[in-house]
Amino acid sequence: MCECADALRLKKLNMCNNKNPGKLPGFFNFEPMENGMHENFMRMAIALAESNIEQRLGGPFGAVIVKDGEVVASSANKVVPENDPTAHAEISAIRLACKALGTYNLSGCDIYTSCEPCPTCLGAIYWAHIDKIYYANTKADAADIGFDDHFIYDEMACSMDERKLPFVQLLRDEALPAFKRWQEIG
Amino acid sequence: MCECADALRLKKLNMCNNKNPGKLPGFFNFEPMENGMHENFMRMAIALAESNIEQRLGGPFGAVIVKDGEVVASSANKVVPENDPTAHAEISAIRLACKALGTYNLSGCDIYTSCEPCPTCLGAIYWAHIDKIYYANTKADAADIGFDDHFIYDEMACSMDERKLPFVQLLRDEALPAFKRWQEIG
Repeated sequence: MCECADALRLKKLNMCNNKNPGKLPGFFNFEPMENGMHENFMRMAIALAESNIEQRLGGPFGAVIVKDGEVVASSANKVVPENDPTAHAEISAIRLACKALGTYNLSGCDIYTSCEPCPTCLGAIYWAHIDKIYYANTKADAADIGFDDHFIYDEMACSMDERKLPFVQLLRDEALPAFKRWQEIG
Repeated sequence: MCECADALRLKKLNMCNNKNPGKLPGFFNFEPMENGMHENFMRMAIALAESNIEQRLGGPFGAVIVKDGEVVASSANKVVPENDPTAHAEISAIRLACKALGTYNLSGCDIYTSCEPCPTCLGAIYWAHIDKIYYANTKADAADIGFDDHFIYDEMACSMDERKLPFVQLLRDEALPAFKRWQEIG
């Protein structure tokens, strides 16, 4: 297993594990060692988080998606550089994995994320049909440094009229026919 | 107010309301009439849903984002054509609005969505700091035609060890330094 303790961890991991260079251009080429496989994938996610901070690119979050023991995609948080509030590490990695595999269904994939997913990312992980989540830091750790997802989790648990975000229903009668049409053309 | 009752609703709405053609290339150019402003924005969202079905592009969902009475972005669901499980109508519209406005913060914007948002989209709406949600169909309506978000809402309400999706914690001790470093460089 690699000894990785600084912002070069990612590079070192690639050097130690890359037996198929160029196999997946733009992504990590990584064949895990049998011992510590999960830990090594998590170290890649952590290294992405560290690298993101050191390069001043965004929040301290990284995620790696693995299928059959190989990395298919990875990303750090890209909210700031991409002006995209949905470009969290997990969602960005999901988008890249789907592009790499040519599908919107990531069944058979696991995700390694440096922090417990926020509600948006957790929902995306379900929609993507990812099999398993490995995480390192907790949402409480994230809250301690100012990333507090708890408000969103609390809001989701409320009924609409109890939420702080106002919800107004309009024109259900005009919207329902689209749903009925969807069923018809199934 | 336009009379719109079929899949051409979108086109008709644009024809009726577009007083500034070309102002926002790629998006709707739409100045709402004073009466029925909210209904007209919702009709655009519904029309996107209808058009998406008729063109066999994806699910029956559409969303429109409005700031100061003007549409800044809109999208139908693009999960299938873009192979992106996160390309729901609301998230796609948020990404386009952020691109149009050059920010990841949509404070001052409202969203009009043809269906009550799923957990992923709802989370994204909070992260984007959108002010208000107008919706037409309910999540129960969506469940009736096979889009059941309830499972995800239920999973989010559970503790990790009660969820059907397995969660495994790894290497928190190695991930925490990135969070501490984030605080240091604040």
